[in-house]
Amino acid sequence: MSAIEIAQLAKKATTSLQSLPEEQRLMALESIAVALTHHKDEILAENKKDLLEAQKNQLSQAMIDRLTLTDKSIEALASMCRDVADQVQVVGTIVEEYTRPNGLVIQKQRIPLGVIGMIFESRPNVVVDGAALAIKSGNAIILKGGKEAFHSNRKLYEVIHGAIQRILPAGAVSLIETRDDVTELLKLHEYIDLMVPRGGSALIQYVREHATMPVVAHDKGLCHMYVHGDADSSIVVPIILNAKTQRPGVCNALESLLLNEEYPHNKEVIKALIEAGVEVRGCEKTQSLHQSVIPASSEDYDTEYLDKKISVKITKSLDEAITHIQQHSSHHTEAILAQDPAVIEKFLNSLDASALVVNASTRFNDGGELGLGAELGISTSKLHAYGPMGAKEMTTTRFLVKGNGQTR
Amino acid sequence: MSAIEIAQLAKKATTSLQSLPEEQRLMALESIAVALTHHKDEILAENKKDLLEAQKNQLSQAMIDRLTLTDKSIEALASMCRDVADQVQVVGTIVEEYTRPNGLVIQKQRIPLGVIGMIFESRPNVVVDGAALAIKSGNAIILKGGKEAFHSNRKLYEVIHGAIQRILPAGAVSLIETRDDVTELLKLHEYIDLMVPRGGSALIQYVREHATMPVVAHDKGLCHMYVHGDADSSIVVPIILNAKTQRPGVCNALESLLLNEEYPHNKEVIKALIEAGVEVRGCEKTQSLHQSVIPASSEDYDTEYLDKKISVKITKSLDEAITHIQQHSSHHTEAILAQDPAVIEKFLNSLDASALVVNASTRFNDGGELGLGAELGISTSKLHAYGPMGAKEMTTTRFLVKGNGQTR
Repeated sequence: MSAIEIAQLAKKATTSLQSLPEEQRLMALESIAVALTHHKDEILAENKKDLLEAQKNQLSQAMIDRLTLTDKSIEALASMCRDVADQVQVVGTIVEEYTRPNGLVIQKQRIPLGVIGMIFESRPNVVVDGAALAIKSGNAIILKGGKEAFHSNRKLYEVIHGAIQRILPAGAVSLIETRDDVTELLKLHEYIDLMVPRGGSALIQYVREHATMPVVAHDKGLCHMYVHGDADSSIVVPIILNAKTQRPGVCNALESLLLNEEYPHNKEVIKALIEAGVEVRGCEKTQSLHQSVIPASSEDYDTEYLDKKISVKITKSLDEAITHIQQHSSHHTEAILAQDPAVIEKFLNSLDASALVVNASTRFNDGGELGLGAELGISTSKLHAYGPMGAKEMTTTRFLVKGNGQTR
Repeated sequence: MSAIEIAQLAKKATTSLQSLPEEQRLMALESIAVALTHHKDEILAENKKDLLEAQKNQLSQAMIDRLTLTDKSIEALASMCRDVADQVQVVGTIVEEYTRPNGLVIQKQRIPLGVIGMIFESRPNVVVDGAALAIKSGNAIILKGGKEAFHSNRKLYEVIHGAIQRILPAGAVSLIETRDDVTELLKLHEYIDLMVPRGGSALIQYVREHATMPVVAHDKGLCHMYVHGDADSSIVVPIILNAKTQRPGVCNALESLLLNEEYPHNKEVIKALIEAGVEVRGCEKTQSLHQSVIPASSEDYDTEYLDKKISVKITKSLDEAITHIQQHSSHHTEAILAQDPAVIEKFLNSLDASALVVNASTRFNDGGELGLGAELGISTSKLHAYGPMGAKEMTTTRFLVKGNGQTR
């Protein structure tokens, strides 16, 4: 089928998807979970083809890491489907109801957006995340993955398709596979209600420029952490190491650290980072704390490394830190380690990000960790959804106005 | 000031606007209400200049109607400001709070979008609507009205500016006056978070094509009403006349009527419309009901008349009506007059519009009538806001994540 035929079929599915009983959505999600476990070996075999190709093409270790599926990660996808099913119902629910003085009963009803297009890179698990969230939220979804995950994506799609074909209408979940189809897809605002790009800046830029429908972009995370002078020293190093090193290649990993010069253990923070194998690029004061610190260029403070590298700056005050973050923020995640409530409040009131984190790791800005079940991605745009996008963020509301003859 | 200077000043105002105490917002709204009454004569004098110009340029009666301010309409603007103030607080409130198994406290906090640009045509009262809603929602707003309301817009802006200048930061409400500034404004995605065009299709098309920031468009309303065979005849004619004639030039006015052939009083409906001075363009069956019915072309069923004209079609069934509406809907407002709950439910489940109205006039799809206090406009796009956009719809939410040392 061509991109336009796929989009038309998806649009056609929307009316019945919206009025489907919730039990049927849950049945579809359970059926996918069972099928993933059942077809695990075949999925791993197809994934191996992509991994061999990746080695042949000398892709980076980070890319190969994102591409790799394992026994355990497939089981995690199955339990993600069950988690999403267990979330509270989002489609068709009445989220607000009131009666006007003239007797009109006004209801705000949650409804799906319609058809969502999702374009993503490398990680094949996004096929399952996207399908599961679309099913829960009553949307049809059209998925387009990267060519480096071609075999894995196709197999996962086949497994999903087999699992849902007797439960959901045709067109509920589709996969497109060629780059030409993407160009075509971006023109189809008549059939596609929202386009979600998830990947590198080049992809996001391309989609923003060419899409004729609304776009919710999941852009970069240049996440900052500020350590105030009074920070609890027992949590500082563990949180910084977790935020930077637990998974350096993801968007909620820490990229830039601001240490108040009054914090008494700055030297130990830098030492711990370097001993953990992190390349530290710092201002002059940072350089004086450890001989392995590399001088930071002004570019470093605007760089999302997605790697075991970090930019560090010693600041004189909370205000200096706030001003720095305001200038360099990607509006994704900003964190503070501090004890004084007035300091924390000022930090929260001064900054603009989808998540502001106090005394915890930046890695918690994640749909699963925040309790949304799973996420389509993390929106850094304030329109429609700001932060992790779960099933609820893939819906909208409409007004139902019920009267008995009212006129104006 | 140039457009970019205005946008920069607006952006600069956002941080303090967001953390302002609610009392100050209410004080600003009350101050505007008082000032409008106080400067009423000056406002009417400036409005007269625009009206004279309009007559000289032979603008249509509908345009002149939208342009006209009166003693009463200025008082209505003052009380709208007080209504908006009386709405529940939207900025800074915690809309959801829960604790994760690891002890993290997650809060979803409502925050302003930042800077909103609003481009509108003819009706000068939009200056006050936009300013009041922006103040309540903690946003900075940049307003650009049509040149036909130049004097009225400027005077209203001056009154507002005088009323708030000691209460809100500079840049909270701005007015730009030249068309060149609009082109410039649409480029400034660095400073402007949302662009809201409100007006004719040409304006909306232009903004959609040139804006580099997200757009929530307030597009046309080709509103349908379907009369089922069992409709309560005591409410049918009053509702249809109200929906069509109470204010034909607005987006929630009725444009296309579908009558089930089993409804026994179709003849009386057509007669009542014609006697009310409405031009009826109908299908063959409609033509057989009254000699004054003009044959409808297929174009008529896609036309938003904004005038005392209506397209009418006699349908064989609910299904035929639903299919017709699905094909011609502008996703604004669709209404049904019927008694059988199963018929009503099928209608609601099959159609996609920002408001679905049962046994009442389409004219109720309006921010004031639905209890939102006032509206920036009615969004026909599902992203971010679907239907009337009040103060709450001009906000977003962010996550506050509060821990005591949590890592992943």
